[in-house]
Amino acid sequence: MSNRYTYINGQIVSENDAKLLVTDLAVQRGYGIFDFLKTVNGKPIFIEDYFNRFYNSANEMHLDIGLDRTELYKAINSLLEKNNIANASLKIILTGGYSEDGYQIAKPNLVIVQAPFEYDKSSFNKGLNLLSHNYQRQLPTVKTIDYLQAIRLQPLLKLKQADDLLYHNNGEVRECPRANIFIVKDNEVLTPNTDILRGITRSKILNINLDDVTIKEQDFTLDDFANADEAFISSSTKNILPVFSLDGKAIGTGTPGKITTALSEKLLAMINNY
Amino acid sequence: MSNRYTYINGQIVSENDAKLLVTDLAVQRGYGIFDFLKTVNGKPIFIEDYFNRFYNSANEMHLDIGLDRTELYKAINSLLEKNNIANASLKIILTGGYSEDGYQIAKPNLVIVQAPFEYDKSSFNKGLNLLSHNYQRQLPTVKTIDYLQAIRLQPLLKLKQADDLLYHNNGEVRECPRANIFIVKDNEVLTPNTDILRGITRSKILNINLDDVTIKEQDFTLDDFANADEAFISSSTKNILPVFSLDGKAIGTGTPGKITTALSEKLLAMINNY
Repeated sequence: MSNRYTYINGQIVSENDAKLLVTDLAVQRGYGIFDFLKTVNGKPIFIEDYFNRFYNSANEMHLDIGLDRTELYKAINSLLEKNNIANASLKIILTGGYSEDGYQIAKPNLVIVQAPFEYDKSSFNKGLNLLSHNYQRQLPTVKTIDYLQAIRLQPLLKLKQADDLLYHNNGEVRECPRANIFIVKDNEVLTPNTDILRGITRSKILNINLDDVTIKEQDFTLDDFANADEAFISSSTKNILPVFSLDGKAIGTGTPGKITTALSEKLLAMINNY
Repeated sequence: MSNRYTYINGQIVSENDAKLLVTDLAVQRGYGIFDFLKTVNGKPIFIEDYFNRFYNSANEMHLDIGLDRTELYKAINSLLEKNNIANASLKIILTGGYSEDGYQIAKPNLVIVQAPFEYDKSSFNKGLNLLSHNYQRQLPTVKTIDYLQAIRLQPLLKLKQADDLLYHNNGEVRECPRANIFIVKDNEVLTPNTDILRGITRSKILNINLDDVTIKEQDFTLDDFANADEAFISSSTKNILPVFSLDGKAIGTGTPGKITTALSEKLLAMINNY
């Protein structure tokens, strides 16, 4: 049993009682959006950016959040105060609501879940081994709850001793299921620009200044990836993590690269100074 | 408030109390499967076929139903007895379960919902107007709960005064969101065979014998559709319904076709004799 609390539609309830009727369109039709951010020392990091994306996702899916930004911020704060966890993840979910016919959108259900979360700095040196998978996410710019492929392929990851998937569309690199991807080649840092979810951490990295290094949005292929000097992923919880291999073949030296390391330090400073 | 009952994990509860924790993978990640059939005069029609598909979907998504077929049949029967509705729809949903990290599959939740359902014979003469949409369903042979596109596009249907979508993959016709599609041309009845959900009603139609008519699985294009003599959809609730137009252009005479009508009568007889 959890002793934490969850926000549902204006109420703060024990996590053990945080339930939705099975008529909700998330259960009936996988219809919902979410966003996911972290608090560091009690502060929700880059929350304006996450709000921008969350309100955009809701709009794209014809879901009415029912709260303006000030009200949503208040709702989050009331949960933060109740749970009182300094370093945590925050997940804001908006579902299609209790649909009478199991098909039409109803009044959406708004759920906010908080869980303790400590960033593990040591994971940086372990790096990641990725497994490529030919898959284009549907509605790629919207943060929907659709993770059918990623979850279904977990046993394959285990079998291949890989840490995560790298989605590509017939050879054009896209993203990981829960992270964006970057490669470094000849002092150029590239991240795909087509049919991807625009990560908040990704956008922060695109704005980092690093001497003699260009950082830009530009599509690239699996071949480019295999021949990169360095590669890394970015995500709200993992920050920057180096990629050591793709499909069993080492990328660069198979250790954290110089530019990856420099960007990671700048990103962590940005988060700590927020 | 509903006075019907729902089955959840071995319990029969009031529909008003039929709830899942928000940690369920359906809410967190849109991860679940289902199947949908009807009872006529209390009999679940073609239930062995639906069971075949449901067990196959569960297997494809690494979800353990937790009941063998006899036990699942018993579970359904206990709900049918409790609700006592002669003509009804039955929806069996299996979700990814209460996941600790919101990502790994847990012990699935099994939910069975029943609702009154009467087949409306008059809908046959009204026919359907379809709107084509370029979209290939992911994991097409598995009956997952993913209906993101279909539900998101409901306002577009209304705007275009269309009844339903017709998915095609770059011009190759696939299916409707909740129905299979057939065309008739020169006494040949064709239904797509690639990357579709294999409907139970579709399979029954493929086995109908009609003098001088060939019925077979064969892919066709939007152009073939536009030039068809007749077209119709098939589904568990709608049986056979003629299609009168695609993207505003009439198909055939814009009335129920001769072969469509003959197949519909044979299908209804098959259901009534089950």
